[in-house]
Amino acid sequence: MGPGDDAAVLRDGSAWTLDTLIQGVHFDDRLRPEDVGFKAVAVSVSDLVAMGATPEHLILGLSLPRGDDRFFRGFCAGLHQALEQFGLALIGGDTTRSPVRVVTTVVGGPCPRPVTRSGARPGDGVYVTGELGWAGAGWSEADPEPRALQALRRPSPPIGAVAKLASQASAAMDLSDGLQTDLPRLCTASGVGAHIEAAAIPGHPDLRCRVGGGEDYQLLITAPRPPDLGVPVTRIGTITDGTAVELDVGWPEPLFDHFDAGVTP
Amino acid sequence: MGPGDDAAVLRDGSAWTLDTLIQGVHFDDRLRPEDVGFKAVAVSVSDLVAMGATPEHLILGLSLPRGDDRFFRGFCAGLHQALEQFGLALIGGDTTRSPVRVVTTVVGGPCPRPVTRSGARPGDGVYVTGELGWAGAGWSEADPEPRALQALRRPSPPIGAVAKLASQASAAMDLSDGLQTDLPRLCTASGVGAHIEAAAIPGHPDLRCRVGGGEDYQLLITAPRPPDLGVPVTRIGTITDGTAVELDVGWPEPLFDHFDAGVTP
Repeated sequence: MGPGDDAAVLRDGSAWTLDTLIQGVHFDDRLRPEDVGFKAVAVSVSDLVAMGATPEHLILGLSLPRGDDRFFRGFCAGLHQALEQFGLALIGGDTTRSPVRVVTTVVGGPCPRPVTRSGARPGDGVYVTGELGWAGAGWSEADPEPRALQALRRPSPPIGAVAKLASQASAAMDLSDGLQTDLPRLCTASGVGAHIEAAAIPGHPDLRCRVGGGEDYQLLITAPRPPDLGVPVTRIGTITDGTAVELDVGWPEPLFDHFDAGVTP
Repeated sequence: MGPGDDAAVLRDGSAWTLDTLIQGVHFDDRLRPEDVGFKAVAVSVSDLVAMGATPEHLILGLSLPRGDDRFFRGFCAGLHQALEQFGLALIGGDTTRSPVRVVTTVVGGPCPRPVTRSGARPGDGVYVTGELGWAGAGWSEADPEPRALQALRRPSPPIGAVAKLASQASAAMDLSDGLQTDLPRLCTASGVGAHIEAAAIPGHPDLRCRVGGGEDYQLLITAPRPPDLGVPVTRIGTITDGTAVELDVGWPEPLFDHFDAGVTP
């Protein structure tokens, strides 16, 4: 199973994903060095969790300017915290010089029953884990509240959901670019539409953050029955026939149609 | 088997390696976009070959400035050539924006009998595949000859050696930083010294290129008997007791001692 889902799954039943974080593009001074080390691991862990895979191995690429010792020490501390928290072993990698900080994380682990984006069926419920929009608020607000800053700095993918995901979800993916971008991807892969109740989406008070903020690193799940995954799950809508992905905000305007030109405000 | 060798080997018998190439650090305009695509794959293939592993899967990280379309097209063409030549499948990855071009390659494949750096024993012969120093000359010379430029642009790791490596070599590593840097690493890992006949090293006429040029992406092998690997192999010296790594250039000066402060000119 190659490109197009959250991770590649090999014939030997292992899943692998790669993420690159670039200074000035994916992180800036709002993230302390420790946060960069932690987050780089967490974003790849999130991809594996969304496939129903257990993260086990980390391969790390770290490229830094000369003399970037303070960053390096903080980065290593945060990396170590993430290895502990997610139960990963660092098995290898490459360190090089670079004019900008570049972190590449490759995470792999066993994936006996892959959960893809393509299994959603009309009538399935649409669910999310945790709360959405906090990290998005952390990015977009000039002076974000502590909870938003924490969400931006320390993503917490719901690794506890891995064990039961394959037996209960018809489809899953991780929410990295925002519900508004990611849900149409899942619907396209599954050949279905969706109807979402805006008021049901848990998280930040601002709907724009909840649907478009990005960096949630929570799971988007579809399932024929309410899933019991051992982590907080909220039903936010229903999978439908057709291709329209509708957001019910109290008036009949669709938020987006993934065969249309993107977002319809 | 974790960090410290050319690749990590997992319990499931697969080997994995990661390399990052950064514009301005690892490549410049002497490499055309196609060359960057090819070389990025070749350098990771080289690591796997040195472990006695068969390269099978590629995971790619590619980070480019906005609008870098011409580079991207050339890069993809060279990448495709490398996938064909080395028999690899691209299984996934990540593409992001970046102020400088960054390429990360992760290559994995089966490694039933890992060949490490630590198995060299006194009396073993020291061997290299192919010729050394051409890529080094390509880097260091203002107007390199075509063969040097080709070696710099299109590394050709001896993938044909994989099948017989584990049964014949006591230790192996790939020559990426130059014999002068890499041989002491192998000797340190094995707890041995080495005596090298400078005149026996095959390759570029300039000895400094042959021992210190780097980017050879050939194999450094130790073996109790002359190896028959299906690729050209040359004996360049002998593993010794002790820690001195000596280069015999006709006078008794040691080139380097890896428990001393590095290179002794």
